[in-house]
Amino acid sequence: MAYSGEPILVEDLLFKPKHSLIDQSLHSTMGATTTNGDGFGIGWYGEGAEPALFKGTEPAWNDRNLREIAGQIRTPLFFAHVRASTGSPVQRSNCHPFRRGRWLWMHNGALRGFHDVRRDLVTAIDPGLFPDLEGSTDSETLFYLALTFGLTDDPLAAVARAVGFVEDVGRAHQVENPVQMTVATTDGESMWIFRYSSERQSRSLFFSTEIDKLRALHPEVEVLYHLGDETRFVVSEPLRDLPGAWNEVPESCAALVRNGADELREFQPISPV
Amino acid sequence: MAYSGEPILVEDLLFKPKHSLIDQSLHSTMGATTTNGDGFGIGWYGEGAEPALFKGTEPAWNDRNLREIAGQIRTPLFFAHVRASTGSPVQRSNCHPFRRGRWLWMHNGALRGFHDVRRDLVTAIDPGLFPDLEGSTDSETLFYLALTFGLTDDPLAAVARAVGFVEDVGRAHQVENPVQMTVATTDGESMWIFRYSSERQSRSLFFSTEIDKLRALHPEVEVLYHLGDETRFVVSEPLRDLPGAWNEVPESCAALVRNGADELREFQPISPV
Amino acid sequence: MAYSGEPILVEDLLFKPKHSLIDQSLHSTMGATTTNGDGFGIGWYGEGAEPALFKGTEPAWNDRNLREIAGQIRTPLFFAHVRASTGSPVQRSNCHPFRRGRWLWMHNGALRGFHDVRRDLVTAIDPGLFPDLEGSTDSETLFYLALTFGLTDDPLAAVARAVGFVEDVGRAHQVENPVQMTVATTDGESMWIFRYSSERQSRSLFFSTEIDKLRALHPEVEVLYHLGDETRFVVSEPLRDLPGAWNEVPESCAALVRNGADELREFQPISPV
Amino acid sequence: MAYSGEPILVEDLLFKPKHSLIDQSLHSTMGATTTNGDGFGIGWYGEGAEPALFKGTEPAWNDRNLREIAGQIRTPLFFAHVRASTGSPVQRSNCHPFRRGRWLWMHNGALRGFHDVRRDLVTAIDPGLFPDLEGSTDSETLFYLALTFGLTDDPLAAVARAVGFVEDVGRAHQVENPVQMTVATTDGESMWIFRYSSERQSRSLFFSTEIDKLRALHPEVEVLYHLGDETRFVVSEPLRDLPGAWNEVPESCAALVRNGADELREFQPISPV
Repeated sequence: MAYSGEPILVEDLLFKPKHSLIDQSLHSTMGATTTNGDGFGIGWYGEGAEPALFKGTEPAWNDRNLREIAGQIRTPLFFAHVRASTGSPVQRSNCHPFRRGRWLWMHNGALRGFHDVRRDLVTAIDPGLFPDLEGSTDSETLFYLALTFGLTDDPLAAVARAVGFVEDVGRAHQVENPVQMTVATTDGESMWIFRYSSERQSRSLFFSTEIDKLRALHPEVEVLYHLGDETRFVVSEPLRDLPGAWNEVPESCAALVRNGADELREFQPISPV
Repeated sequence: MAYSGEPILVEDLLFKPKHSLIDQSLHSTMGATTTNGDGFGIGWYGEGAEPALFKGTEPAWNDRNLREIAGQIRTPLFFAHVRASTGSPVQRSNCHPFRRGRWLWMHNGALRGFHDVRRDLVTAIDPGLFPDLEGSTDSETLFYLALTFGLTDDPLAAVARAVGFVEDVGRAHQVENPVQMTVATTDGESMWIFRYSSERQSRSLFFSTEIDKLRALHPEVEVLYHLGDETRFVVSEPLRDLPGAWNEVPESCAALVRNGADELREFQPISPV
Repeated sequence: MAYSGEPILVEDLLFKPKHSLIDQSLHSTMGATTTNGDGFGIGWYGEGAEPALFKGTEPAWNDRNLREIAGQIRTPLFFAHVRASTGSPVQRSNCHPFRRGRWLWMHNGALRGFHDVRRDLVTAIDPGLFPDLEGSTDSETLFYLALTFGLTDDPLAAVARAVGFVEDVGRAHQVENPVQMTVATTDGESMWIFRYSSERQSRSLFFSTEIDKLRALHPEVEVLYHLGDETRFVVSEPLRDLPGAWNEVPESCAALVRNGADELREFQPISPV
Repeated sequence: MAYSGEPILVEDLLFKPKHSLIDQSLHSTMGATTTNGDGFGIGWYGEGAEPALFKGTEPAWNDRNLREIAGQIRTPLFFAHVRASTGSPVQRSNCHPFRRGRWLWMHNGALRGFHDVRRDLVTAIDPGLFPDLEGSTDSETLFYLALTFGLTDDPLAAVARAVGFVEDVGRAHQVENPVQMTVATTDGESMWIFRYSSERQSRSLFFSTEIDKLRALHPEVEVLYHLGDETRFVVSEPLRDLPGAWNEVPESCAALVRNGADELREFQPISPV
């Protein structure tokens, strides 16, 4: 889940779903009833230039420190992730979101055959970035590849190249359909989201309609008046049964979500060779 | 879940369910897909007179230390519990099983209105036992009340008195149906199990048929020949679709499970006044 | 350690000691080199009426979440505590500071013979407060006794009565010198600190001189110009070699630290009978 | 610390130092008073062909699960390690000992400039081994390099080559004195220990004299009669003031410790080029 808009208490996003577009589904997503119990993380922009991270290896719902700080932190840009491990250890350095400088990154999905291709992927990481790789996940590796291919300059092209590279390496190792991903990344101002899989059957990804349009559609829904005009949510599943509220990112597409008009483009991996 | 029988590797009980009476259900019960993600614990008898405990606050499936020691410990009597918190903090001292001397205790269910009656209950605990109360759960309090009322001398009568006392206190506080419980307790040799609720709608509880009878019923089931004659499992839900394998403990009953013939009796709370 | 003054980043208090009155000593106190490795906690006033808490069971220095949020939280009133366990389990509910409503409480020292007197002490806690007792420490019990004896109305008298009561109970159990304590408590506006022990050999406790007086004494010390006029630190040991900066709370005394003039009074336990 | 000899309860090694050659020093080493509070681990040989591991990120003394299992596990070969982090995160995958197949490895010291040379070192790891690298420490990297250079076939030569390679890479990056190490490794039967540093000022390392010789030296020391003839301890510091009990491994030496006569050899890094 990602939020962008007027500064809001994290608690209102995570633990008071009735007061927001996010309803019980997220409560469930962050909670003990989820199957995604292999760690969680939040990232947000507040004091200082770099985003802050809070991560844990217990189910999010049980983390009392998370509940405490959620009631204390206001932020205009917020990432939250719950992890279902695909094999890597459940430890802080493997929890999303990942950070480098002003950038945050989170990923749902998998680089298939990661155990076999991991060496080829990490050795392609820029030597200047390599020493800061902390964990052992496919997701962090994909982030560092995107950084290597220019994420901070041209996010769309860099992710396309990183994915193209992973597909090349995967296929060289006889991995069918090497990439399955929904990705969200941000520099603290804009947010880029990606929906892609090698087999063109990607996990779902949605972003919320602009609030002013939504108010026109549903003038009776009071909560919409409490949210700023530039509010955006990005989620894996529609969170509330509100016709017109959720736009599905189409298969093999990327979107730039920011103040002003969003942009939606086709996403095509670029083989870096 | 409780096991009694020939010494067996804990790993074979928890993580290799195909080799035992316990199938994928338990795998699921101990795993990340359960809703009982609020801590776990195991207790077993091995070296020394007192049982040993291993408890954790993460989902059991994620605990690598648990997997390591499960492959190293053989025991003839084993308790395992996964906890769904009803409000108390998720911390080691609130995880089951609880221990005192040679005794282990675990409880599914709830003392209703515990927040309100807690003071009256804990002040009834024997002053000599009171200082060792470590956590803040209803389950540990019920254990200490049973100890106060003579658990180590006459388990059936002591639990009846403890439950009678909790019902008296609950009713004095206008709590409807104060007790909902399935309980298992052991001194390392015999195991007593209880199924009771004030409203006579208790959670289910099953124990396994004697293995020799089961072999006669299902001569084609190979796993039955790998288990000793005195093997007993106690579970909340039947774990395998094997007609005749699982005996439900009837409503308001207690059973004594031990080497030789088991005993099943009616369970009736005793008001201690 | 306690801080009161203009809103300040927690990071500046805990992790950038060179920029504050607090030097490397505190860095050490929060760090891996201390013997107080049995958990830590911070409490602060920010959003909302009640203070927030962040506690952990690892050495503070190793807690990356602490470092992250320390860089994000500004507060005018801050408590920090590192714990050296005197026997109670190392778990979140036993870490200081403790909270009730707007109040925070932290304690260094011990109620001697606590194992033996615990039952008598907790049964004296107001039945309306009792259910919220979460942990098993002497320090939280003393807090709840102080609340029982009127902490929120008259902190000085309430603590005197709580201490008097603990001494009465201890002596009835043949405990010599039942109380050893330095305590700090606050309602978010004023702070009360206590130094007392039954044997009149209490741990040390210091509070900082008013900043304007200190500037007059040490016009060359630049850091003093970065701190607001109403800045106050309370510490167990003087943190910097600055003549005139630290006032020792005398044996058997209490101080009220707040905006405006502080007050120092003799502290005498009151037997509640 | 490493132990080899007759099967012994881990508890007797870690928590009952008065009954063994290991006195309060180790108690202190494993305890809260040490500065090595950045995680701990034990490895031992028991059920099955591979050793088992138990690791934690809290101070060892606070880990109740460790105390419980220490009372349940008997083993003839035991490694224990407490970690003082030199920068890598405090997480399970960074705690010693490390394991691969039947082999255990632990390391005190540092590969200097590891942040800068890490990429060159990990890319030299055998591609078949690389995917199993789990953490981000210099110590695990050195283990995997030793495996790459043939640890399981010829431990002395393999470690010499691994160290030679690290020195080559370090010097190419202008790192002065790249290696500082004491290392212990075992296949469950023999134990190899190494003391080396590029600047020839290595941390100390000791192994215990054969028990029968020690009994002849100190016939009055009763504990010596409780230990088997083939008992060996390897420690960083002499643990007890018993003249003749502790043999220092000389600078730049390796020792093979096993049933029968030990062997001590000069250790000289081998540049693998």
